[in-house]
Amino acid sequence: MRFRLTPRDTSFYDLFAASADNILTGSKLLLELLGAEPESRPDIAERMRAVEHAGDDATHAIFHQLNSSFITPFDREDIYRLASCLDDIMDHMEEAVDLVVLYEVEELPKGVEQQIEVLARAAELTAEAMPQLRTMSHLTEYWIEVNRLENQADRVHRKLLAHLFNNGAYDAIEIMKLKQIVDVLEEAADAFERVANTVESIVVKES
Amino acid sequence: MRFRLTPRDTSFYDLFAASADNILTGSKLLLELLGAEPESRPDIAERMRAVEHAGDDATHAIFHQLNSSFITPFDREDIYRLASCLDDIMDHMEEAVDLVVLYEVEELPKGVEQQIEVLARAAELTAEAMPQLRTMSHLTEYWIEVNRLENQADRVHRKLLAHLFNNGAYDAIEIMKLKQIVDVLEEAADAFERVANTVESIVVKES
Amino acid sequence: MRFRLTPRDTSFYDLFAASADNILTGSKLLLELLGAEPESRPDIAERMRAVEHAGDDATHAIFHQLNSSFITPFDREDIYRLASCLDDIMDHMEEAVDLVVLYEVEELPKGVEQQIEVLARAAELTAEAMPQLRTMSHLTEYWIEVNRLENQADRVHRKLLAHLFNNGAYDAIEIMKLKQIVDVLEEAADAFERVANTVESIVVKES
Repeated sequence: MRFRLTPRDTSFYDLFAASADNILTGSKLLLELLGAEPESRPDIAERMRAVEHAGDDATHAIFHQLNSSFITPFDREDIYRLASCLDDIMDHMEEAVDLVVLYEVEELPKGVEQQIEVLARAAELTAEAMPQLRTMSHLTEYWIEVNRLENQADRVHRKLLAHLFNNGAYDAIEIMKLKQIVDVLEEAADAFERVANTVESIVVKES
Repeated sequence: MRFRLTPRDTSFYDLFAASADNILTGSKLLLELLGAEPESRPDIAERMRAVEHAGDDATHAIFHQLNSSFITPFDREDIYRLASCLDDIMDHMEEAVDLVVLYEVEELPKGVEQQIEVLARAAELTAEAMPQLRTMSHLTEYWIEVNRLENQADRVHRKLLAHLFNNGAYDAIEIMKLKQIVDVLEEAADAFERVANTVESIVVKES
Repeated sequence: MRFRLTPRDTSFYDLFAASADNILTGSKLLLELLGAEPESRPDIAERMRAVEHAGDDATHAIFHQLNSSFITPFDREDIYRLASCLDDIMDHMEEAVDLVVLYEVEELPKGVEQQIEVLARAAELTAEAMPQLRTMSHLTEYWIEVNRLENQADRVHRKLLAHLFNNGAYDAIEIMKLKQIVDVLEEAADAFERVANTVESIVVKES
């Protein structure tokens, strides 16, 4: 890490790291949901809501810092995009858990496990990457791997939709509920990729 | 209001105010829809379409002004975002009315009334806020209140979805139609929040 | 065309033209899909996937060029937006073909033909327009015509939805599948309009 004379940029890095750590916490709640009995799901949803509120606070702190800073460590639009996409990830993860409870889903189809495992891995990589923004090091593997994970998530998602529609095990209303849930999880995967692409853009500009 | 020697910024303020007034008109048509007999709905949809065209003209005028101005009263990206989000609100409101007619919906579920009342209140606040951009005063309460309304809209929306899916009163095709309509109304509420967040961002930068 | 002493901007123009040519190729595969027997559809989907990969490469090359260029021929945000929207078009076209195969759709409803014809026309106009960015000439007719086409696509899309829901020929699961496909095609039309609006914005700034 380079030595810095002024602490002016510190909080952006800290805030991005906090936002990503929060997402990591959320992804663990998603994993917990997978093994949970239906009666313990509302408690997981409640904790997820608290995590999402913490995420909102982090996002708001970044925007406030951005709007009141004359000098920023990287392009204003990149900071805006990074904070927004991290916020989107958290929103989608919270929505997925809430819908499972709200729609009184009995059993999640098998592919959902794979979707959530991909999200959990992307959350780990993102939480490791954010602190590296300070030194701009070791980030290439991160964005390549997140892009690979998003492609994997996309294939899982489409296979899941085909399974829901074609295997005859679900009625139309059940398909609608489950489709909304798997679509929201896919949107979370997309948002992880947008975070990675923004990080790539920041690094390329600086190099 | 500060005295201005040049009229250079005038039209941006006027155009944003016109766009928000137009949305207020649209929100009144949404309220009118609630009490209307099915046979008078096509007429409301027709008037809504005219309001939406007026909105398009306002948006286009803002973009044209933005692209041909060397100096702008606030950040170009904020102007772009503000105009786009105002346009989104109008588009979603128009789409909701059109879908009600197109899908020959007999009765709207009860929660739709609450969704539309929230939108109508957000439209009033937004129409009051836009003229304040000139002096940047009295805007804090506006964005706090719109954020609160969006949270309320979100809760109403999710409860409505659970009601559609779980109460057994609707068949699958009816659920699909109604879900699309309540989703579009929720998107309008989200767009009001994005407008408020952009206004906050503009004010914080100036202060 | 103005004479240029330096080749610095060349690649942006070439890359945008390549991206649009690729979309034109994709739109021809969509047209081919219309007349194809179900058993030859997987082959079309395979070729579409290859076209989409080529599109990804073009998008990535534009972002890389953007991030590593100190001087750009037009605003950085406009370049970013143009490349992103071109990429969106390709993604939506690929998704539509993939869903037709994945969902084992027997017959596409009639309006889909009209949707695809509008997209094919928009693809031709866009492929002709991109090389004109260099000289900024003959672009007004392009964006007016693409906006007109998007309005037409929008009307076709809504009529198609009403047809799916109201004519009684489809069951709920079939409607869900077909709705997703026609919605994705509509998103492609929207993305063509965003490309045209971005081009308008670039031209107005330069004039």
